[in-house]
Amino acid sequence: MTHQLKVIERKQLQEKPDPATLGFGTLFTDYMFSMDYDPELGWHDAVILPYQNIELSPAAQVLHYGQAVFEGMKAYRTGDNVRLFRPDENFKRMNKSNARLNMPEVDVDFMVDALTQLVKLEKEWIPTGEGQSLYIRPFIIATEAYLGVRAATHYKLMIILSPVGAYYGSDHLAATKIYVEDEYVRAVRGGVGFAKAAGNYAASLMAQTRATELGYDQVLWLDGVEQRYVEEVGSMNIFFVIDGTVVTPELNGSILPGITRKSIIELAQHLGYTVEERRISIDDVFEASASGTLQEIFGSGTAAVIAPVGSIKYRDQEIEVNDSKVGPITLDLYNHFTAIQNGTEEDPFDWCVKL
Amino acid sequence: MTHQLKVIERKQLQEKPDPATLGFGTLFTDYMFSMDYDPELGWHDAVILPYQNIELSPAAQVLHYGQAVFEGMKAYRTGDNVRLFRPDENFKRMNKSNARLNMPEVDVDFMVDALTQLVKLEKEWIPTGEGQSLYIRPFIIATEAYLGVRAATHYKLMIILSPVGAYYGSDHLAATKIYVEDEYVRAVRGGVGFAKAAGNYAASLMAQTRATELGYDQVLWLDGVEQRYVEEVGSMNIFFVIDGTVVTPELNGSILPGITRKSIIELAQHLGYTVEERRISIDDVFEASASGTLQEIFGSGTAAVIAPVGSIKYRDQEIEVNDSKVGPITLDLYNHFTAIQNGTEEDPFDWCVKL
Ligand SMILES: Cc1ncc(COP(=O)(O)O)c(C=O)c1O
Ligand SMILES: Cc1ncc(COP(=O)(O)O)c(C=O)c1O
Repeated sequence: MTHQLKVIERKQLQEKPDPATLGFGTLFTDYMFSMDYDPELGWHDAVILPYQNIELSPAAQVLHYGQAVFEGMKAYRTGDNVRLFRPDENFKRMNKSNARLNMPEVDVDFMVDALTQLVKLEKEWIPTGEGQSLYIRPFIIATEAYLGVRAATHYKLMIILSPVGAYYGSDHLAATKIYVEDEYVRAVRGGVGFAKAAGNYAASLMAQTRATELGYDQVLWLDGVEQRYVEEVGSMNIFFVIDGTVVTPELNGSILPGITRKSIIELAQHLGYTVEERRISIDDVFEASASGTLQEIFGSGTAAVIAPVGSIKYRDQEIEVNDSKVGPITLDLYNHFTAIQNGTEEDPFDWCVKL
Repeated sequence: MTHQLKVIERKQLQEKPDPATLGFGTLFTDYMFSMDYDPELGWHDAVILPYQNIELSPAAQVLHYGQAVFEGMKAYRTGDNVRLFRPDENFKRMNKSNARLNMPEVDVDFMVDALTQLVKLEKEWIPTGEGQSLYIRPFIIATEAYLGVRAATHYKLMIILSPVGAYYGSDHLAATKIYVEDEYVRAVRGGVGFAKAAGNYAASLMAQTRATELGYDQVLWLDGVEQRYVEEVGSMNIFFVIDGTVVTPELNGSILPGITRKSIIELAQHLGYTVEERRISIDDVFEASASGTLQEIFGSGTAAVIAPVGSIKYRDQEIEVNDSKVGPITLDLYNHFTAIQNGTEEDPFDWCVKL
């Protein structure tokens, strides 16, 4: 593991985008981070270099066998103050994904250091508007040119940066409409659902496309074995407020262990809410709605932070939640959470890394 | 869909490898095929060009979300006679994979034509030794530079060619040792197991690594729901000969519908064997062994063609099959199958495309 970090300067910087028009994940900053792995040298040639295309062999294993993992996190800026939200958690999770996909571990401290240097260099790229941030995408791909199915010997880790607006457009607390998928399955225990493995996302596209066509924003996945238990939503974990208690599906091997999820559980407990991590079936949710105890639902994830859910459709039933408005507990959690991320409120958990 | 096929000539041809030292999937021929897709033009810019690295955006969706499918088939040569084995079946299956992963269909006839031209050009690369062939790898990757999770708008289809020896080394009818995986799961109904989706293979690596460490050649996967029913082996389908009947797991959505599997079923019936496609549990297999009716087991796939299975380990039990030797029905099927592929025997099914 080398701890040298070279910087290759870029001659011509790009013009920064108009913050008013920021979307998600289409624009990239001037620089990126890259590092290579081979069995002799381990991770080596760590470098910050101008954002540019990469060259791959057409036989590179990532293109054939999907041996790739990624992470997603954000940097926030207020004036000159830049904050990263729990970056160590992302690289720790990356190592769990690496282990599941037979890929080499990274050094978490080194990665946080390298990321810090990269973000400092690109500070001016971090937009400061409401709901805006710099989206950070670390990823590792298998680069070995070999067509046999086995773990690759050579890898590349990169970090690219994208200035982003709110994930669901400007009205970031508008309630989303959820479609419960009862045919397609995203993941099953014993599989790779808990890893941020590239292939999980390709496997989810059909269901998302169908939900969109039917007029829904996101898919709610059920477990792969019984197709009864609630798992997660598209790229968010899910929370229910039932009879005053905050309930979220327990981590079971097929759900991604969201860092927002984990942080919201800690924050909610800190604020005095009762939180339960447990198995919850889709029938439980509909019964709670029928009996009047289902108060709020929201999704949690890096991209959207917290997204209120306004309605859920399952087979031939559809329920509305809290009149399709953001509920009081969702709003309370959202306000504290984003204030901690932006640095406008004290950070009792030491979540933020100030650059 | 354009049917123009441009050829860009290569200045300097490579030296052909020594046929005696051929492995699998490490050497590539002088030329490859490439074609691009965008929503306006559809598939376009079909070209045969010198084998070379490709350039991708670091934000290309294949690198993040595994939106990629592939195929695998072989060309055989005897003297000047070159044969492709059922290439239309591979492009039809590619379209099924495409559909499941929200990717654009290809024109099967055009693809078979393009492949034919490419293989003709590379005829001299097809090795002629026992068990040798030209392995053909068509694949499609999502190239759009966009970090949101949705089906990409831009794709690249490529075909690369690799001269190969026998998949399991020189002794191609040596019995393999199989490890029944009862913890990790490859695929589940409702998922993408029936598609040749890149991510399926990354998801299989851990189990394969464990099996190898324990001294086994391949993993036998069980179904993802009950973890009881036999599905397939690594990159092969599986057949059992029980009490004179050839039995193979039925296609259920989580098994890859192998073209070798399908062809072996047709061939076995043609040769007068009784074939059953049905659910078969791992307990059924062990009971058949205990009662003396389990006669033979073999795997089927493009890479290995037919691979006899000599033993199966499941939890704390291990059974030997036919004294770890290739059985008479396996051998009969192997001999006819390879003779049809090589053109030394009449092809009653019209499987082979002669170039
Ligand atoms: C499948 C899935 N679930 C949940 C999440 C939420 O995780 P986090 O809070 O770490 O962003 C994500 C992604 O970010 C995801 O891709
Ligand atoms: C998972 C899997 N099963 C089975 C097979 C056998 O299919 P075919 O006979 O078409 O080669 C393959 C691959 O080739 C495979 O990858």
